[in-house]
This record gives sequence, C-alpha cells and structure tokens, in this order.
Amino acid sequence: MTEPKINALVSPEGSLEILSAHEVNRLKDRSEGGLYRLFRQCALAVLNTGVESDDCKSLMEAHADFDVRLVPQPRGLKLELINAPGHAFVDGELLRAMREHLFSVLRDIVYTHSIPQTIAGFRGDNPEDITNLVFHILRNARVLEPGRQPDMVVCWGGHSIGQEEYQYSKEVGHQLGLRNLSIITGCGPGAMKGPMKGATIGHAKQRVRNGRYVGITEPAIIGAEAPNPIVNELVIMPDIEKRLEAFVRCGHGVIVFPGGVGTAEEILYLLGILLHPDNADLPFPVVFTGTRENAEYFDMIDKFIRNALGDEAAKKYQIIIDDPVKVAQVMRTGIKDVETFRRAMQDAYYFNWMLKIDPVFQMPFEPNHEKMLALQLHRDQPVHMIAANLRKAFSGIVAGNVKESGIKQVQEKGPFEIAGDPTLIKPLEAMLEQFVAQNRMKLPGSSAYRPSYRIVSSAA
Amino acid sequence: MTEPKINALVSPEGSLEILSAHEVNRLKDRSEGGLYRLFRQCALAVLNTGVESDDCKSLMEAHADFDVRLVPQPRGLKLELINAPGHAFVDGELLRAMREHLFSVLRDIVYTHSIPQTIAGFRGDNPEDITNLVFHILRNARVLEPGRQPDMVVCWGGHSIGQEEYQYSKEVGHQLGLRNLSIITGCGPGAMKGPMKGATIGHAKQRVRNGRYVGITEPAIIGAEAPNPIVNELVIMPDIEKRLEAFVRCGHGVIVFPGGVGTAEEILYLLGILLHPDNADLPFPVVFTGTRENAEYFDMIDKFIRNALGDEAAKKYQIIIDDPVKVAQVMRTGIKDVETFRRAMQDAYYFNWMLKIDPVFQMPFEPNHEKMLALQLHRDQPVHMIAANLRKAFSGIVAGNVKESGIKQVQEKGPFEIAGDPTLIKPLEAMLEQFVAQNRMKLPGSSAYRPSYRIVSSAA
Amino acid sequence: MTEPKINALVSPEGSLEILSAHEVNRLKDRSEGGLYRLFRQCALAVLNTGVESDDCKSLMEAHADFDVRLVPQPRGLKLELINAPGHAFVDGELLRAMREHLFSVLRDIVYTHSIPQTIAGFRGDNPEDITNLVFHILRNARVLEPGRQPDMVVCWGGHSIGQEEYQYSKEVGHQLGLRNLSIITGCGPGAMKGPMKGATIGHAKQRVRNGRYVGITEPAIIGAEAPNPIVNELVIMPDIEKRLEAFVRCGHGVIVFPGGVGTAEEILYLLGILLHPDNADLPFPVVFTGTRENAEYFDMIDKFIRNALGDEAAKKYQIIIDDPVKVAQVMRTGIKDVETFRRAMQDAYYFNWMLKIDPVFQMPFEPNHEKMLALQLHRDQPVHMIAANLRKAFSGIVAGNVKESGIKQVQEKGPFEIAGDPTLIKPLEAMLEQFVAQNRMKLPGSSAYRPSYRIVSSAA
Amino acid sequence: MTEPKINALVSPEGSLEILSAHEVNRLKDRSEGGLYRLFRQCALAVLNTGVESDDCKSLMEAHADFDVRLVPQPRGLKLELINAPGHAFVDGELLRAMREHLFSVLRDIVYTHSIPQTIAGFRGDNPEDITNLVFHILRNARVLEPGRQPDMVVCWGGHSIGQEEYQYSKEVGHQLGLRNLSIITGCGPGAMKGPMKGATIGHAKQRVRNGRYVGITEPAIIGAEAPNPIVNELVIMPDIEKRLEAFVRCGHGVIVFPGGVGTAEEILYLLGILLHPDNADLPFPVVFTGTRENAEYFDMIDKFIRNALGDEAAKKYQIIIDDPVKVAQVMRTGIKDVETFRRAMQDAYYFNWMLKIDPVFQMPFEPNHEKMLALQLHRDQPVHMIAANLRKAFSGIVAGNVKESGIKQVQEKGPFEIAGDPTLIKPLEAMLEQFVAQNRMKLPGSSAYRPSYRIVSSAA
Repeated sequence: MTEPKINALVSPEGSLEILSAHEVNRLKDRSEGGLYRLFRQCALAVLNTGVESDDCKSLMEAHADFDVRLVPQPRGLKLELINAPGHAFVDGELLRAMREHLFSVLRDIVYTHSIPQTIAGFRGDNPEDITNLVFHILRNARVLEPGRQPDMVVCWGGHSIGQEEYQYSKEVGHQLGLRNLSIITGCGPGAMKGPMKGATIGHAKQRVRNGRYVGITEPAIIGAEAPNPIVNELVIMPDIEKRLEAFVRCGHGVIVFPGGVGTAEEILYLLGILLHPDNADLPFPVVFTGTRENAEYFDMIDKFIRNALGDEAAKKYQIIIDDPVKVAQVMRTGIKDVETFRRAMQDAYYFNWMLKIDPVFQMPFEPNHEKMLALQLHRDQPVHMIAANLRKAFSGIVAGNVKESGIKQVQEKGPFEIAGDPTLIKPLEAMLEQFVAQNRMKLPGSSAYRPSYRIVSSAA
Repeated sequence: MTEPKINALVSPEGSLEILSAHEVNRLKDRSEGGLYRLFRQCALAVLNTGVESDDCKSLMEAHADFDVRLVPQPRGLKLELINAPGHAFVDGELLRAMREHLFSVLRDIVYTHSIPQTIAGFRGDNPEDITNLVFHILRNARVLEPGRQPDMVVCWGGHSIGQEEYQYSKEVGHQLGLRNLSIITGCGPGAMKGPMKGATIGHAKQRVRNGRYVGITEPAIIGAEAPNPIVNELVIMPDIEKRLEAFVRCGHGVIVFPGGVGTAEEILYLLGILLHPDNADLPFPVVFTGTRENAEYFDMIDKFIRNALGDEAAKKYQIIIDDPVKVAQVMRTGIKDVETFRRAMQDAYYFNWMLKIDPVFQMPFEPNHEKMLALQLHRDQPVHMIAANLRKAFSGIVAGNVKESGIKQVQEKGPFEIAGDPTLIKPLEAMLEQFVAQNRMKLPGSSAYRPSYRIVSSAA
Repeated sequence: MTEPKINALVSPEGSLEILSAHEVNRLKDRSEGGLYRLFRQCALAVLNTGVESDDCKSLMEAHADFDVRLVPQPRGLKLELINAPGHAFVDGELLRAMREHLFSVLRDIVYTHSIPQTIAGFRGDNPEDITNLVFHILRNARVLEPGRQPDMVVCWGGHSIGQEEYQYSKEVGHQLGLRNLSIITGCGPGAMKGPMKGATIGHAKQRVRNGRYVGITEPAIIGAEAPNPIVNELVIMPDIEKRLEAFVRCGHGVIVFPGGVGTAEEILYLLGILLHPDNADLPFPVVFTGTRENAEYFDMIDKFIRNALGDEAAKKYQIIIDDPVKVAQVMRTGIKDVETFRRAMQDAYYFNWMLKIDPVFQMPFEPNHEKMLALQLHRDQPVHMIAANLRKAFSGIVAGNVKESGIKQVQEKGPFEIAGDPTLIKPLEAMLEQFVAQNRMKLPGSSAYRPSYRIVSSAA
Repeated sequence: MTEPKINALVSPEGSLEILSAHEVNRLKDRSEGGLYRLFRQCALAVLNTGVESDDCKSLMEAHADFDVRLVPQPRGLKLELINAPGHAFVDGELLRAMREHLFSVLRDIVYTHSIPQTIAGFRGDNPEDITNLVFHILRNARVLEPGRQPDMVVCWGGHSIGQEEYQYSKEVGHQLGLRNLSIITGCGPGAMKGPMKGATIGHAKQRVRNGRYVGITEPAIIGAEAPNPIVNELVIMPDIEKRLEAFVRCGHGVIVFPGGVGTAEEILYLLGILLHPDNADLPFPVVFTGTRENAEYFDMIDKFIRNALGDEAAKKYQIIIDDPVKVAQVMRTGIKDVETFRRAMQDAYYFNWMLKIDPVFQMPFEPNHEKMLALQLHRDQPVHMIAANLRKAFSGIVAGNVKESGIKQVQEKGPFEIAGDPTLIKPLEAMLEQFVAQNRMKLPGSSAYRPSYRIVSSAA
C-alpha cells in the first residue's frame, strides 16, 4: 500500500508553546550540536501513530523526504509539515491529539537541552541532580499538578499482545476509570493503549473531565512505540533511566500486564528499587494481572523472581487473574494508603521525593557487546544489585530488538552475548525462549524474530 | 442472581436543580394528580441501566420496594434512594452519570407538567402549540445551544442487535467523533449506545471537550430502554410523537442502523415528513448503514419503502454498506449544507423551525385493538398519509412488545389485528416475519417472541 | 445638549437567550395584550443609564422615535435598536453591560407574562403562590445559585445623595468586597451604585471572580433608576411588592444608607416583616450607616421608628456611624449566623423560605387619592400593621414623585392627602420636610421639588 | 502608630508554584550565594503594600524581626510568615492579591537565578542574549500570552502625585478599560495605581473577565514602590535596564503621566530607542497626558526634549491635556496599527522582537560618584546617545532618592555631581528644580527633600 503523504501547516491549539529567538535558532540548527535532527526524528515518530510497526530504522528510511519547519506567527508558533505520513490525518486535517504531541515534543526537546546547565553546578553523575532534573522536566511539561489527589496508575505491559489480552487491559482501564483513577504508560500500542481507551469510557460515565492519560517516552523508543492518540500529556525524557524514574516518582501504583523483555526490564527496575531497605515502609501498590490464559505466564514470572531475588521480592506484588474489578479496587485502596502516608509525611502528592533510588538504577546504561558480556550476573551481591544487573540485561535485549543503535550493533557484530551464574541465566534463557514462542518480542507481521541475544555458558 | 439493593443519598453534581416549595409538593404528591408515581417509575428505569431486559412491567414488579424521596438541603436538593438496584453503583457509590440522569428526570417531569398551562391559550391539538411545547421542554433541558454550529447526528436502530452490528455502530460513532460530530439517540442499549461509545473515543482523540451525547426518551419507553451512562444530556418528552419531533427538529442529519419495528416506525415518520411538499428543498442528510451482513436487510427495507411510498421516497436516503468513514463523511458534508441553508434563511441552528410537520404526525396515537384495526392502510391517499398510517401500525406493535399499557392489552385481548390493501400489508407481514426471524423484536434471552400483532386479510 | 442617537444591531453575549416562535410573536405584538410596549419602555430605560434624570414621563417623551426589534439569527437572537440614546455606547458600540441588561429585560418580561398560568391553580391573592412566583422568576433569572454560601448584602439608600455620602457608600462596598461579600441593590445610581463600585475594587484585590452585583427593579421604577453598568445580574420583578420580597428572600443581610421616601418605605417594609412573631428567632443582620454628617439623619429615623413602632423595633437594627470596616465586619459575622441557622434548619441558602411575610406586605398597593386618604394610620392595630400602613404611605409618595402613573394623578388632582393619628402623622410630616430640605426627594438639577403629598389634620 | 504584626501560614491559591528540592534549598540558603536574603527582602516589600513610604532602608530596619519560611506540603508549597506587617491582612487573613504576589516573587527569584546558565554560552554582555533573557523571564512568569490580541498600555508617571492628578489617571484608566485595553505599570502607588483602578471599573462594565494589570518591578525598587493589590501579574526583573526592556517589548503603547526623575528616565529611555534609525517605521503610540494644571508641566518637558534631542524627537509623542476619552481613543487606534504591522511582518503580538534596542540601553548602569561625574553630557554624539546619557543621569538621581545603595552613597559622600555642556545641563538643572518645587521627588510626608545630585559647571 502506498500511504498518502500530506503537507500541512499546524497551529498549537491547547498547548500554545512560545519560543525565544534563541530557541528557534537551536531547533533550526542542522549541525551536529543543533536540535533539528532530534526534533525531526521525534516529530516523525509522533506522526506515525497507529502504524503497526516497531522498527525505528525502517521508519526513518521510509520517510527520508519528511521535513518539519518552524513558522513564527503573530499569535505564537506554527509548524509546517512536509510529506507527513497520512495516518494521523482525518479528511486532510491533522488529528488534534497529534498537534498536541508535536508541540509536546518541541517543548521537551528545547527544555531538556537547556536544563542541564540550569542548575548551577549540576552534575550528570550526581544522583540528587538526576532526580531534580527529572522533576524539572516533568514540571516544565506541566505533569506535576499540585492541587490534585493521588490518582496515577502506571500501566506496564507489552506493545505486542493478542486481542484477548488487549480487551482485558481495556476492561481493567474501564474499571480504573470508573474509580476516578488516571493512567500513565509508555504511550505506545497494546497494553499501553488498552487501559487508556477503557479509562476514557469509565471517565465519561463518571463525568471525570480532567482524566489524565500520560505517556512517558524517550527519543530512542518513540519511533518504535508511537504515542497513541488518547495520550493527552506526552513527555519525552532524555533516556530510559530517567523515563523509568519518572514512572515511579509520578505514579502512585503500578499494574503490570503480560509483555516481553521491555516489561521484564520494568519489573526488575521496580523490584530493585522497592527492595532497597530505605523503601521498606513506603506504601506502593503493585499488581500483576492478565486473563485466565495468562495465569501460566505470571506463574513463570513469579518463579523467575523468587529464584533470582528471593521470596521477599514476591511480597512486593500481588497477582490477580481475570478480575478487573478486583484489580481496580486493590489500586484504589493502595493509592488511598499512599495518600495517607504522604499526608502524614508532608511529602508531595505529585512527586515521590521519599522513594530511594540507588544510583545504579539512575546511571544511563548504553548497551554494547562488551558491556553486555561483562554484566555481573551472579549471586555474590545484594539482592537489589542482582535486580539491577538483570534489568540491564533486559535493557540490552530491548535495544537490540527495537532501538536504532542496538539494531545496528547486532546487525554488525551478531547477537549480544550474556553470561553468568547458571542458576540465574538458565531460567533467564528459558524465559526469553517463552517470550519468543509467545510472539512477545516483536510486533506480529514482522518477519520471524531473530534473537538479539545469546546466552553463553559462562562469563569470559 | 439476587441483585444487591442499595440505599443512598444522592446530590446533584453538575445539574444542580432547585425546586420551589410548590414543585416539591407536587413531586411528593402520591395521589392521582400528583407526580410521585411518574417520578418513581422513571427514576427506577434510569437506575436500571445496563440490565439486559426490556420488559417494563416485570421491572416494576421486581422493584416494588424501591422508593425515592426529595430531601431539601441548604445548597439545593438531594434525593434519597431506598432499595435501589445495585447495577448503577460502583463500590457503593452511584455512578455520576446516573446522578445526572435522576435529576434530568426530575427537571423534565416538573417542567412538562407545568408547561401546558404556561402558554396562554395553549391547545394540545394545535400544531403550532405542540411545536412550541417541544421547543420549551428542550430549552428548559438546556439542549438548545444557541452558540453552537450544527453537529447533531441522530442515530436510530435496534436496541436488540448482534455483536457485529454493535461493533459496526461503534466504529461509525468513532468516525463521527473524529469529525467533531455529536450524537442523539433514543438513549437505550444496542445501536443507541454503540455510536456514543465510539464517539467518546473519537472526541478524546480530537480533544473535543464539549461532545454531546443526547438521549431523548419518554416515560413509556424509558423502562424498556434505560439510558446508557454515556448519555450526558437526557430528556424525557411527554409522549412518542413529541419525542420524534424533538429528534427531527434538534438533529441535523439521521443515520439508521438495522433494527426492528421501532426503527421502522422512525423511518416511516421521517420519510413521511420529508415527503411533505413544503420540505422538498430542505437539506436533511439521511443514511441507512450496516455491515456487509446487513446488506440484505437494507435491501428489504428499501424495497418495502419503494413499494409503499414510491421511488421518490427512496431519494431521501442513501444506503452505505460497511464503510464507516464514508458514512461520517456524508454526514459531515450534509450537515455543512444544513448550516449553509439555515444561515441563508436566518433560521436557527439549534431548532429546525422551517421543517413542516403535518399534524397527523404530531397528534398522539394511543394504540388499542379498535384503532389498530381501523388504520387506513390503502393507496387512496397522499403518499405522506400512507407513511403516517404505516408509522402508526409499527407504533402499535412496539407498544404491544415493550410498553406497559400495550403489553397489558395484548395479554388481555390477544394480538392487535392489522388489515388493509394486500399490496401494502403483505410486504408488511413479510418484513415483520423477518424481524422476528432475526431476533429484532425483543432482547435475546427473553423467552421466544410471541407476536403482538396479527395481519388479517382485509379491514372490517 | 443634543444627545446623539444611534442605530445598532446587538447580539446577546453571555446570556444567549433563545425564544420560541410563540414568545417572539408576543414580544412583537403591539396590541393591548401584547408585550411590545412594555419591552420597548424597559429597553429604553436600560439604555438611559448614566443620565441624571429620574423623570420617567419626560424620558419617554424625549425618545418617542426610539424603537427596538427582534431579529432571529442562526445562533440565537439579535436586537435591532433604532434611535437609541448615545450614552450607553463607547465609540459607537453598545457597552457590554447594556447588552446583558437588554436581554435580561427580554427574559423577565417573557417569563413573567407566561408564569402566572404556569402553576396549576395559581391565584394572585394566595400568599404561598406569590412567594412561589417570586421564586420562579428569580430562578429563571438564574439568581438562585444552589452551590453558593450566603454572601448577599442588600444595600438600600437614596438614588439622590451627595458626593460625601456617595464616597462613603463606596468605601462600605470596598470593605464588603474585601470580605468576599456580594451586593444586591435596587440598581439605580447613588447609594445603589456606590457599594457596587467599591465592591468591584475589593473583589479585584481578593481575586473574587464570581462577585455578584444584583439589581432588582420593576417596570414602573426602572425608568427613574436605570440600572448602573456594574450590575451583572438584572431582574425585573412585576411590581414593587414582589421586588421587596425578592430583596428579603435573596439577601442575607441589609445595609441602609441615607435616602428619601423610597428608603423609608424599604425600612418600614423590613421592620414590619421582622417584627412578625414567627420571625422572632430568625437571624437577619440589619445596619443603618452613614458619614459623620449623617448621624443626625439616622437619629431622626431612629426616633421616628421608636415612636411609631416602639423600642422593640429598634432592636432589629444597629446604627454605625462613619466606620465602613465595622459595618462590613458586622455583616460578615451576621451572615455567618444566617448560614449556621439555615444549615441547622436544612433551609436553602439561596432563598429564605422560613421568613414569614404577612400577606398585607405582599398584596400590590396601587396608590390613588382615595386609597391614600383611607390609610389606617392609627395605633389601634398590631405594630407590624402600623409598619405596613406607613410603608404604603411612603410608597404612594414615591409613586407621586417618580412613577409615571403617580405623577399623572398628582398633576391632575393635586397632592395625595394623608391623614391619621397626630402622634403618627406629625412626626411623619416632620421627617418628610427634612427629606425635602436635604434634597432627598428628587435628583438635584431638577426644578424645585413640588410635594406629591399633603398631611391633613385627620382622616375623612 | 504601632502597626500590628501578624504570623500566618499562606497557601498559593491560583499560582500554585511547585519547587524541586534543589530550589527549596537555594531559597533557604542564608549564605552569601543563597537566595534567602533577597527573597525575604522582596517578600517584605510586597507585604508593605499601601504604606505611604518610599524609603527602602527604613522599611528594612523597621521590620528586622520579619521572617519568611518555606513549608513543603502534599499539595504544593506554603509560606510561613513571621511578624508580617498587618497592612496586607483583612480580619487576620492575608489579602489574596498579596498571596499571589508573594508566590510571584518566589517564582521570579528562583527562575532568574537559574536562567543565566540556562542558555548554553549565554553572555551577560551580549545584546541578543539579554533580550532572550528578558523573554525567558517573562515567559516563565506567564506574561506572554500567545493567543491574545495587542492590548497592553504601559502607564508611566510619578508614584508621588496629587489627588487631582490621581483622579485624572483613574479616569484615563476607566476609558482604557471601556475600550478593552489592559495596563502595565511599574506597580507602585500614584500614577501606577490610578489607571489600574479605573480600568477595573471599565472592565467590569464591559464584562472583560481577563483584564490584565501587570506590574513589572525589580528588587532595588520594590521596597520603595510596593505593588498595589490590583496588580494581577507581578514580575520581578533582575535590574532596571531589563525592567525597562520588558516594558517596551511587552507594551503596545505608552502613556506618560506627570512624574519626577523616574518618569524622566523612562521618557529618555523610550525616546532614545524610538530615535534609533532601525525603528523609524515601527508604529508605537506614545501619549503624554495630564490635567489642565499639568499643561505647563508637559510644556516644560516638551521644551527640554526639543532642546536636548531636537524637534524630530517630539514627533514620537503626542501631548493631550484633560481629555481621557481622546487619550484612550488615540491608544486604541495606535494599537490597532501595531497589530496590523505585526501581522504583516509575522512578528509576535506578545513580544516586540523587531524593536531595536542599542546595547547602551541594555547594559546595567550602577551609579556611583565617579560614573555620574563622567557621564558624557555633550552634543558631540548621535542624538540617541545623548538620550542614553541623560537617561543615566536621571537613573542615578532616582537611586540617590529611593534605592538602598544609592541613598547610602549619598549619605556617605554627598550628592552625585553632574557636569557637561551647559546647553544641556542648565535646562536639566531647571527641570530638576521644578520637580523639587512640585514635590515630585519623594512622597509627601517625608521630611523636606534633600537633593541627591548637584549640577556642577563643567566636567572634571
């Protein structure tokens, strides 16, 4: 099918960003240090909504003639789109959701690239500075609503799921919406779209006019997981670690639907943090849920966690099978506890300052063959460090599957090799094989999955 | 299943009706002339949302212990519900949509029973007075929005439809919503709920915050077709004829999905009006649409109309099969024409004053065996009178199927008899048999349909 | 000075009234029973804002060529003004306040002339029906806000006052506004405008965005006291008695500034009601206040009341001289008591249902020479009846001063004669002379005041 | 008089600022580099509203025991005030305007002290960077409203003016408000308060709900000219030059009322910029206006300008005496021209990017005895440089009058000496003497004005 390409002049209804001459110049700057390339790439990703493909590289190649230009106006700023993919248009007009997303991208790219210097003496390797940075980006994106009671449910799960799983995630969203809860996800399709759609209907029935559908993404993933149009607050964090930190500091509870390696990365990140001794008394509701058919899947996940991190880790979450009402009730109650706790502690509702995040979870991990092979996958370390290193292993596989730089490395040098204590990596290998067998690695319709990893007997 | 019954004190968030002492007294009045009985009955119907049953009589009997009381408050008025059906509650709290619906019922019952005397010299049999009355009730219900551009699509079709048909009506609603159009329906389940649900998602994507989901019902039908919770403007008209007039004066276009006798009644009402010579030049887009499986159904309808009313009648509508995008585009374009026409004529956007409605369509038809048998179903009359009389025939069958008084008459005296010119009533009989065969007469799950009509060879 | 006359087409921004064909016809009807004459007269009065004249008759004569026409529009209704007085225009455009007032006039005239028949069995001489009618008119005018806490301070006082008194009333309004209180007045100039202007500044400082400036008038007085443009809710009650009832049922407290016979009428009306035994325990804060120069004036009023109604009556009010802060604090505290009382009694905040108003204060009093001379001004009656009859005496003098029909009668037959017990009418005569001496009878600038009354030694 | 001191916990209604841990720490930091001292000083100044004193130094001394503390809260941030001056409270509660102002101070101090490092490579002596900085501070303060049509009238004039002049400025504001125009001033009393109060009433009459009353100040002046409570958008710019740049880039026209040296500084700044050849074709309406008594005053100003800068300079403004309606009409028309021009040029309505400001007007001038004596007050330079240097002379005198550091220098070393070409400095001396004679140097009530300057025959 040849998709139509459309030229359009887009004005920012709703968000109404305004830029200084300096900022406009940086966005127009096509040189190495300039922001044009990044902005164009993210804008294209946003416009690619609804296209069932998670391959960044081919997206970029297919739209080599796409361009986006800034057009200053008396009443603000417009964007001119050249050869934009036709999917995001209705009868020739850009979907309003997409307009908002484009200007969110603009806002976050401009801000993120000026903020590092903002905080006098800011250091990228200082944990407190990283947290402040996450806070500033979220505040600038107007995601932190001071007057609001806790209501944010993080929904994690695969972007590549079956129709039954999708319907189930929708029904869970419906029940959350009926209880006035809002949704944060990674903002792509699948388990990230279902709960939002369901919550929209639930909110309509409860006349919730300010329901939130927050999508938090990052430049390397946005191309693979274009924000779905229900997302009404889109944030582009600079990297995966800050994106994960944004989830756990903004969200008041987490629901995990079935997914693949990305979901596994998220689970290990979350448990690694919650297992930190400083967080022992912090209320933080976590539910794993799915259809009756998913019972086996979660049994596998549960066993993997108990084996790798111990039974203590399994106390941090609750598994609920085929019961959307109960999932929503558990979240509602759990979030009430969060509210009570924060009020008692005088801690903010809109940002979880008290959550201790070990620096190992904050420092960006950029996978390559060397680092992947060197991962410390043994039992001679505290349990939250095991979680941290397993998290990195999954992160590398995600990159090899869908991120541009990861795909390229794997194409050039073959799959990433992973080694370690067999009592850890054998179950890992088994779980990955299950993911492959269940088509959770890539969107269906792509050609057969070629693994981006290889489990080797032992570390070099 | 024993459904839980719940007692609750309900405050009117959103609508905030306030009543005078006089009005409160009338609503509390349990005597014959008082409004208590009517209010209780409609309130119960509203609370019965989501229950898959369309039998008014058994609804009332099953909830004999239900009661509703007015509780004046410093800040307005509350309602106390006793033994309310549990369906409309989420974790013990009444769904906010239901709160609004309860207060809409209150508002319309109070107003409708004071308005007839309002217009000095008002006469129930004066066509102009009837139209003014319809206007006043709609204005009091705040349905007439003077500042708004035409966007109201009436969706008609069966409350008892299959899953495929339901999905299709949802997708049509989605496409309408993406084009910023709003929905009016008869406010029950099936083809009346699907388009609203779809439009909710479409509106969310287009950031339409003031999307309208108008449900127009009447006391005799509300028990059989409880308003679905997406309905955000509920109006109770005093009878079926004023309800139908409200549809065609408020709506800017009509979409007909497959349905049964109720839908047939609506089609004949609409065509009967549009065929009036005075309305010849009035733009009014009408589309019949359904899935690929419905093609045959609409073919049957089309033939029935051409036979009964002539080919001229068939020019008033367009049949579109399995193409939601095209349906929405045709509506969008047609409604633009309506806007242009009204502007040129200086006629209101919010009320179609220019539409000529013959008094025969305005006068209430209360079916009984005598009147049904006496219907003038022959060809010796103008075509819009044939439509009017066929409309009454369908109206009577609807009453025999689902309205309390109709069911009672049929139980007592057997089915209504219908007679007339065989070239008219034979096709009628054939079509009714199809409706029965396709389960379009009653909600599935009820026991087998026992016809409320009988076609007899010729009039007495 | 020749005032410019302006033609304009006016659209209803904000209020957006929509009318049925029936209502439009009644408003256009120039026959005796039609509403055109009344509407034209009130519209002209509204447009005459800011003109320092209180002579209705000459206003009408000076604008014999003024006309107002209804122009239906696709988005509502416009008004066409022909030869409108130029005062209400800024650079050729009608002040937006005036637009709102015109459409308020329209709304209330249409409603008031349909409502009497609305209530089945409504009787104009039934006290309960009168109260319900007042309620319905106010509700239709959207003056009854169910969600709002008590904050309405009635400000009474002369429309013809000096600059010092005006400044003082403004400062009282400022202090009320700083305490989040809103203002109701009779909506003309002088002591009815000052508090509103002051409150506007107070509200601005307190960021009160929904401050209310309610003006309640009636057709016979609106020409003499055109609504000032600060008034953001204008209501036209059908007669003076219903206007007074609206004040005491909507307001939560009353402040009286110096005034003439109109103010005296209001004081006697208020005390007559508050002295009714049924109202003994009802909290209702009343303050008389003015500048240091007004101390003597209020001393005179106080003595007049004590003489006529007894010392008990004087307990119903508090006199505060030259202390706007204290006035506002007393109101704030008094209204808190009203709130507490209403909550305890479950009575509405927005309408004082519990206040007992004796029918003698509700029945319209239309003064003529006969009735004025027949007033029962003696001490052989309950104290609240003395108040009622004195109230009528003042009401008649007001009519003779500024109302069209009263002026005409006095021109034809000479001043109204008033007779009665000398211990009542001698102080009355003395007080009236003071009013004349202090220019409180008519706006300055008019020719010398010619009394519309004459105190005669004893009743016929 | 001993003013009461009040302790209070203040929450940010409306503005709802939220701070990161990093920002809270900087604001609490009482060390040299910390922001506590600056924040405390500005907060005290804000609370000092309505106090008729313009002496910063004594303000600080009189409130040595004042303290302000940040109190993080679940829903945002509160401020705890210790020993706050009682003026800003109504019955013990802080005026809401003052709450907003306190949080505006917080916002701008935090932002201004992080922004310089924000722009990569930002240099304080780079003109473009300075303009971008002004833009960023205003944007962060939400002063730049992209969707709004030009309506901002800058009102300059003395904070120390007579009652007649004050009334006149109020009436001008009233007429501006009636024409839907908004006001920006330096946010103190006198000619900075009058137009805002007048516009409030004008806006009320025109139902303008989003009227803007912008006050732009800086830390050194805020103590002398506390923001009046009508100001609903308060901005603290870092220094006087950026404050002036904010005025001319945000405002769409300027009205100058009579004033003293501060006003003279503003006039010379404005003319110096408008006389730049690049700005020759830029529409920018400027009106000098006052009462009949002020005619002489403006004659003096006009002559001074013509002598110093030539007749060409006088073409940049229009003098209108005693005609508020005409002033408002000239502004309305002039601003329409600005709108037309900006639309044609595709330049923003909300920020005058095209206005060329010579760097000499942007670089901060911190007066001391040496610099003041060294000012180049001769005719051997382009006319806009003469304006620039005269501007600095006035700026130094303002500092000597009311700014803390200036007062201190003058107290220690005597008045600033000013020298130059006699044809420039003789008229300067004469004008300054007039200012003294007319009490325009300091607020009345202060002890007799002791000059902070001395004109010496010729430069050293």
